[in-house]
Amino acid sequence: MAKRPQALLFDVFGTVVDWRGSIIRELGRVGRSHGVQADWGAFADAWRSGYRPAMDRVRSGDSPWRSIDELHLEILLPLLKRAELRLKPAEVRALNAAWHRLRPWPDSARGLARLKRDFVIGTLSNGNTSLLIDLAKAGRLPWDVIFSAELFRHYKPDPEVYLGAVSLLGAPAKRVMLVAAHKDDLAAARRCGLLTAYVSRPLERGRTSQADPSPDRRSDFNAVDFIDLARQLSASEL
Amino acid sequence: MAKRPQALLFDVFGTVVDWRGSIIRELGRVGRSHGVQADWGAFADAWRSGYRPAMDRVRSGDSPWRSIDELHLEILLPLLKRAELRLKPAEVRALNAAWHRLRPWPDSARGLARLKRDFVIGTLSNGNTSLLIDLAKAGRLPWDVIFSAELFRHYKPDPEVYLGAVSLLGAPAKRVMLVAAHKDDLAAARRCGLLTAYVSRPLERGRTSQADPSPDRRSDFNAVDFIDLARQLSASEL
Repeated sequence: MAKRPQALLFDVFGTVVDWRGSIIRELGRVGRSHGVQADWGAFADAWRSGYRPAMDRVRSGDSPWRSIDELHLEILLPLLKRAELRLKPAEVRALNAAWHRLRPWPDSARGLARLKRDFVIGTLSNGNTSLLIDLAKAGRLPWDVIFSAELFRHYKPDPEVYLGAVSLLGAPAKRVMLVAAHKDDLAAARRCGLLTAYVSRPLERGRTSQADPSPDRRSDFNAVDFIDLARQLSASEL
Repeated sequence: MAKRPQALLFDVFGTVVDWRGSIIRELGRVGRSHGVQADWGAFADAWRSGYRPAMDRVRSGDSPWRSIDELHLEILLPLLKRAELRLKPAEVRALNAAWHRLRPWPDSARGLARLKRDFVIGTLSNGNTSLLIDLAKAGRLPWDVIFSAELFRHYKPDPEVYLGAVSLLGAPAKRVMLVAAHKDDLAAARRCGLLTAYVSRPLERGRTSQADPSPDRRSDFNAVDFIDLARQLSASEL
């Protein structure tokens, strides 16, 4: 018999929302309004890739706790300078808030609504709470609960995040499943005793990226999107 | 111009759900199945009124942090003994979980759905997170976010709870409004700088109780239910 979760927790950036396409669109809009052209795909990738080292400084204790909103802003400023995009402070804040408006993948809202019928569904994201609320409102993501790394003052893949959410759910870890498009996140969840489901998002890094198309053999489920995951989970119930 | 909130946070027991009617129904069912008769209204009131002193022992530091589920169980055991209701451990746990199945007031789900269109809506309850998730699933309460005292390891009316939620919302306190049927909860929120709305729930303590029918003159809004509150807030926007 397949392992049956009570609750599904979702990584958000890349798994539920298309951060790269959304950020490129917002950068293009700001660029056009200031008559600046640039490789916005490369800008978006640099913005995103600055986040891991910034977060790791928090994780190692080299930096005090800062939210993703603060980290995003800190990474953005030198990128704006390099692109010679001169923005007023209010415009910088508005652009930084683009991460609160990321669009869901086409299957996300419908797949989550279906999964919500049978399971508690929640976020488990490094994004801060207000960012996750804004994404849900804008994208009609019907979460039962929003768990953010901010609640635990630890970033994934620190075990405190996975175990903290499990404790708040009042469920055994083995009845909670992390759903993510990133194998390192899933591996960290498994080390904490959670079930895992890998959802491939081959377009996360754009159409020209060399996405690894292989399934995650260590995960309990492998799915191509949330509708597929819902179908597999309801079949496993039989 | 009226003060305009961005987010509405709701007390839950008594304000959103009819804890007393729900608990009496569950006690009656358990009593009938064991051939025991008792004044289940008085039992429910005693169960509820034990919660404040138990919580105050946590608030004062006399007791380590314990969730409402744990406090409810501790209060229930002597009440069962007094009523000569002999239950197996699994039956006691099932009865204690009655607090996860409390029914919303008739206007709650519809009023919240309407308020959700214009505001972030969330809980701000002493109930633990898993209890609040269960209430929302069972009662179709469309929360954007679930904030529990458990996140802050402080119980209302400690300021850490109100200020903790405001911080997670990333909003100024004066743009966050507590909605509650209890004037002491509202007063504590105001001391933290929040807006407040009083919703009268005259049946919270039953039809025969001497409920205080007076409005809360210190609150920014006074409403008879959530539909009325939604109407007043949308009028205040004009």
